Amino acid sequence: MSAELTSLVTSLAQRARAASLALATVPTAAKNAALARLADLIDASHAALLAANARDLASPEAAALSASSRDRLTLTTARLNHLAVSVREVITLPDPVGDLLEETTRPNGLHIRKVRVPIGVVGIIYEARPNVTVDCAILCLKSGNASILRGGKECFHTNTALAALITAALTAAGLPADAVQLIPTTDRAALNALLKLDSLIHCIIPRGGESLIRFVAENSTIPVIKHFQGVCFVYVDAAADLAMAEAITVNAKASRPSACNAAEQLLIHVSVAEKFFPAVAGALIANNVQLRCDSASLAILAASDLSALNSQVSASSIAPATPADYTTEFLDTIIAVRVVDSLEAAIATINRDSSNHSDAIVTADESAARRFLAAVDSATVYWNASTRFTDGFEFGYGAEIGISTDRLHARGPMGLRELCTYKFLIEGTGQTRS
Amino acid sequence: MSAELTSLVTSLAQRARAASLALATVPTAAKNAALARLADLIDASHAALLAANARDLASPEAAALSASSRDRLTLTTARLNHLAVSVREVITLPDPVGDLLEETTRPNGLHIRKVRVPIGVVGIIYEARPNVTVDCAILCLKSGNASILRGGKECFHTNTALAALITAALTAAGLPADAVQLIPTTDRAALNALLKLDSLIHCIIPRGGESLIRFVAENSTIPVIKHFQGVCFVYVDAAADLAMAEAITVNAKASRPSACNAAEQLLIHVSVAEKFFPAVAGALIANNVQLRCDSASLAILAASDLSALNSQVSASSIAPATPADYTTEFLDTIIAVRVVDSLEAAIATINRDSSNHSDAIVTADESAARRFLAAVDSATVYWNASTRFTDGFEFGYGAEIGISTDRLHARGPMGLRELCTYKFLIEGTGQTRS
Repeated sequence: MSAELTSLVTSLAQRARAASLALATVPTAAKNAALARLADLIDASHAALLAANARDLASPEAAALSASSRDRLTLTTARLNHLAVSVREVITLPDPVGDLLEETTRPNGLHIRKVRVPIGVVGIIYEARPNVTVDCAILCLKSGNASILRGGKECFHTNTALAALITAALTAAGLPADAVQLIPTTDRAALNALLKLDSLIHCIIPRGGESLIRFVAENSTIPVIKHFQGVCFVYVDAAADLAMAEAITVNAKASRPSACNAAEQLLIHVSVAEKFFPAVAGALIANNVQLRCDSASLAILAASDLSALNSQVSASSIAPATPADYTTEFLDTIIAVRVVDSLEAAIATINRDSSNHSDAIVTADESAARRFLAAVDSATVYWNASTRFTDGFEFGYGAEIGISTDRLHARGPMGLRELCTYKFLIEGTGQTRS
Repeated sequence: MSAELTSLVTSLAQRARAASLALATVPTAAKNAALARLADLIDASHAALLAANARDLASPEAAALSASSRDRLTLTTARLNHLAVSVREVITLPDPVGDLLEETTRPNGLHIRKVRVPIGVVGIIYEARPNVTVDCAILCLKSGNASILRGGKECFHTNTALAALITAALTAAGLPADAVQLIPTTDRAALNALLKLDSLIHCIIPRGGESLIRFVAENSTIPVIKHFQGVCFVYVDAAADLAMAEAITVNAKASRPSACNAAEQLLIHVSVAEKFFPAVAGALIANNVQLRCDSASLAILAASDLSALNSQVSASSIAPATPADYTTEFLDTIIAVRVVDSLEAAIATINRDSSNHSDAIVTADESAARRFLAAVDSATVYWNASTRFTDGFEFGYGAEIGISTDRLHARGPMGLRELCTYKFLIEGTGQTRS
């Protein structure tokens, strides 16, 4: 059985590799034609897609999902309309392939151009989210990459129906049907075999929870770009505008607690803690956020009139933090709070405890801000803005395939350009090396 | 024992991580001061370095090395002089850290800068080559990365002596001594433990033979940038200038057969094969190159007057190729030869059999050249020049840490810039996300 699965994924990867070579040189118009056709096919296929999705939702696997996972699995007419819109938006994005990155003529006359080209074959490993099937397929297609998709088993029928539309769109536009392939099984052994095909697949992007990403990173011999957790910090400096700090803290934590760019950690400079913390605590509690406090911040709340903070204050609104809270990605309405003695202590704490995703300082002191921006070793470092802006759309990239928490290749939001590599084109007149 | 080694490399990696945070923001002058001091220390320490090297060369491990490996392990006064020169050359290279890569102001007023920053902690795994110890340490230092070095056991005493000079140079320049660390054991278990420290080490670069690189790639949970083999092609097109084609073929094969950018494979368009192949065969044989021929090229030689080719022709100069020869990195005075029917057949052959390192077309037909440049999926694609130019110095990068055969992060020659990642610095005025 395992040998059969290995043979199945190997054959699929070989077809993907062949398709990638063809796709690397097709004109933008052909790729856009396939995208336009796909959007039309999605519009015309609501009944079939909703039926496939209903079959998934009725399965025992789907019954075992959490309410939020089940919600992400569910398609509706409105969501299908949105999906078609997102496909049409990718048509409008510039094609990154062929961009001239550098150009030089060497003293020996060699003319060297460094140009952007597709990576080749990209494997996307994700959970039970049908929108990821389409998002990843279209971003890989537009950037000239063949993709191999392996979604969660709870979503298998929906993905199969979507993949059929993608294949039809590719064929209609004269592109290789193998440019986007869904692995036709959710057997874990097939995934394991896939992750070893390093001569055929050039990059693996896992999208999902920590255990999925760890499994992929530990079992893949193919380079992996991880989209891992965000343990993001807001540091309120001694020189912060406290009203701005409150607005940024509440936005970073409460505007979408399930996002990886949401703040999980609040650091407050000791000199403003007594004034700032009771006010922001009230605002956070008003947004149903639970505070997990160090002893210093807890003491400040104890000394203030808690009931004056907010009528919603309850026993569960405020709790002492455990050591684990200081490095936890809650993805929930919880924030851990610490008082720090200095800017340098804040920087050291962030560099030790954050996931190097998105961290912010609020301060009116430019030199403190410059030091923070330089010394905090994270993909995205903010001065006087919410961490929630770490996002491909907010950066002006258009769609994103994710937010890389790795340092190699792509760091932070990954758009079409980050789905490319480069090659050197060198033109001579017969040069040989002495 | 294994737990002890794990503890040893973990502690070493923690110190490297701390050093990397300090090193990321030090001024260029401090890094250059450390480099200058190191060059002076090398100049002043010939006796001690040669003594350590003699101890290595006298070991049973060194006795087991091949003649060429033993040569690479050996230090001489001339080589130490060259080593000091190479350190001083890195002083003259521009510091890549802080380069502004992109800058934009979003409609909401957020000012986004993408700036080049060090990767962090880089692990270099290599064989018994003392020059690699110094080359990698200084390139990592200049690019602001802390490095962890693990060289071959045959070179342990030499590496230890060199590492002591590096530590002294760092300390003299006021930089953290832990910025460059040699693993103080060559036990394989220590390497295995190191390759799992993905929360402390950000990148592994293996330099050496295929088995070392495969071991590292298969056992590392840290992202790896491979510097793998070069199965490089020269394709002589129907419209080639045959004198140029001969010069390029001989240079690509024979100027340094042990280099990864040396040609291992020759493809000849059928329309010029009868005229071109006997001539180039004579020139290659005159350079002691053995030809491993497909049936078509063998038939051409059989029909020509072999002894007229070259007086050195012997039975061993020409042999029928085996299938394996067509994908082999000989690293020796051997070249495999095939006749192809068309440009497209040449492109397909290269995309199937090459290692995507460096491949060349020789032709006077611009449209054939443009098609070849676009369709050959290799890091470096040449038109009318030798593959031997794939090299950091030849590209104008100054020193290189290697030639990446991966597609992610760095492809082709890796200089100081490729030892960096980037981060986003975002300045606002209190922006929150709706």
